[in-house]
Amino acid sequence: MALKKRGKQTFILQSKPTILSVGTVAGKKEWQGHLGEYFDIKMHDALYSQESWEKAERKMMCKAMECALNKANLTENDIDLFLAGDLLNQIVTSSFAAREFAFPFMGLYGACSAMTYSLGLSSMLIDGGFADRIICGASSHFCTAERQYRFPLEMGGVRPASAQWTATGAGAVVLGNKAGDICISHVTTGRVIDYGIDDVNYMGAAMAPAAANTFTSFFEDTNTLPKDFDVIITGDLGKYGSKLLYELMSKNGYDIESIHTDCGCELYKNDPHVLAGGSGCGCSAIYMSKLLNDIRQGKYKRVLMASTGALMSPTTSFQRDTIPSIANAIVLESVK
Amino acid sequence: MALKKRGKQTFILQSKPTILSVGTVAGKKEWQGHLGEYFDIKMHDALYSQESWEKAERKMMCKAMECALNKANLTENDIDLFLAGDLLNQIVTSSFAAREFAFPFMGLYGACSAMTYSLGLSSMLIDGGFADRIICGASSHFCTAERQYRFPLEMGGVRPASAQWTATGAGAVVLGNKAGDICISHVTTGRVIDYGIDDVNYMGAAMAPAAANTFTSFFEDTNTLPKDFDVIITGDLGKYGSKLLYELMSKNGYDIESIHTDCGCELYKNDPHVLAGGSGCGCSAIYMSKLLNDIRQGKYKRVLMASTGALMSPTTSFQRDTIPSIANAIVLESVK
Repeated sequence: MALKKRGKQTFILQSKPTILSVGTVAGKKEWQGHLGEYFDIKMHDALYSQESWEKAERKMMCKAMECALNKANLTENDIDLFLAGDLLNQIVTSSFAAREFAFPFMGLYGACSAMTYSLGLSSMLIDGGFADRIICGASSHFCTAERQYRFPLEMGGVRPASAQWTATGAGAVVLGNKAGDICISHVTTGRVIDYGIDDVNYMGAAMAPAAANTFTSFFEDTNTLPKDFDVIITGDLGKYGSKLLYELMSKNGYDIESIHTDCGCELYKNDPHVLAGGSGCGCSAIYMSKLLNDIRQGKYKRVLMASTGALMSPTTSFQRDTIPSIANAIVLESVK
Repeated sequence: MALKKRGKQTFILQSKPTILSVGTVAGKKEWQGHLGEYFDIKMHDALYSQESWEKAERKMMCKAMECALNKANLTENDIDLFLAGDLLNQIVTSSFAAREFAFPFMGLYGACSAMTYSLGLSSMLIDGGFADRIICGASSHFCTAERQYRFPLEMGGVRPASAQWTATGAGAVVLGNKAGDICISHVTTGRVIDYGIDDVNYMGAAMAPAAANTFTSFFEDTNTLPKDFDVIITGDLGKYGSKLLYELMSKNGYDIESIHTDCGCELYKNDPHVLAGGSGCGCSAIYMSKLLNDIRQGKYKRVLMASTGALMSPTTSFQRDTIPSIANAIVLESVK
């Protein structure tokens, strides 16, 4: 069998696994934004009728999964595997959500890169003949992330202009090996890149070099150019991270600015409280609802997308480590 | 292509990926035990010439990887992917180790199940045609785990008899698709099982039901019996968890007691300070050195092995959640 790897980091999916459905749960700030119409389930408060924010996030993941299963007319018995990740220590959102279902679980950690990471790896497993259907999940919650990574919310800390806002949102996507109208054709697995940024309020800058590395590797590995895509999407680089990405890509000989969209920027367009844009696994997870709709409507035919993750922990930051990052890319194609 | 899944949770590897090498780094308590002769690199203190225990654990992972690469006569350019997991928040040991190498990284979280989880998933990716060689890693460190999950070491907390001792150890295994003397033939991916245990000093009991579920699924999925194996190995159930495993397996109609070995028990045999046995990703990670030697020496021909992981976080325990667990199994076979 010919190796499906091309170049350094890219995998070609011969069977082109398809997207069977997506289910999304959005926080109030998120669905009140200009993308609100696309989300399936709208939360009315951060606790989501639970006794803690952590339990609320877990419920979000479960509801997104149930929604995706329903939309694909599937039950949990139709699912071979569940691959998911989130930001909480020991990825407890994903693991505890997995406890509620009968299918086996593979827990992933790639920080905010969880959505395209799980979609990419799941596509590989389906293409490799290991599963008929896999459910992929990713989530984040402003309140759980803020208290874990930064300060107690009650402190009301002031945030610098480069800070990003962790999205409250969960997304679940069912992938399958049957014909469908949107497929995943390529996966580029990220290398861990450290640009020397140590400011946890400047995550976009920490993650942009990882995105640049992954996109550059993808173009080299597949002998393609940005113009071969209708849109190039990042997960949560925010305003400043996106700018840095354009600079780094330009240095590598690729101009992507005119066709680039960042889920974190899109999610909160025109919201002044959000500063540099959204962040968190939830950005690209709930953006999947809009993206898949855009592809189905014919707006895009070929999409290169990478969620990006900053891999530090509060402990490594206390210990004065810089912030290593990763970006995992997939190519989504309309097969109409 | 025929689906490689059998029954509920088991994957058959048609190409039987082989183990090219293993590298292990052991803490002082670990190499001073009766398995000391098997480990490649012996640490003389918990800091391993670093300024923090976290950085020491990271160095352990890197050294294990370098050792495995050297033993297989490979350089980092020969490696297609790195799959690893550890216990630290945001799996910073694995992610920061990945920063030191040029190959792409997939971060896994399955708590102490990391070694067989990464070996199993890597075997699937090799079997699926995505990689020629993958390096798998897992690590734990007594001091980093203790302060993250329990209490500051300086407090000198007294531990109950059911408590286990987190192993200081890191293991890296290079898997490949070329002929070798030990192969991986089956992978059983765990479901998340919660037995209702909420005592973090009784992890063996929390994890044993997950091991019982995975082993029972494996036997049912493959139509095999315990007698088809020379040994059945668990990662870190310890004394009490192992006993509970025998009971649960017996209820399911399988007697495994006479051929069962637990890496956590084996590692610290006869050490009274260790109480119920070792725990942590490092137990099964460094035990790989002994196990592969035993297979090469002809002691075992066919091995069923599952590392087990308890998936709680300190936050979920504070919030009075019970402890969900997972066990990921692989079958190792001598191909002499």
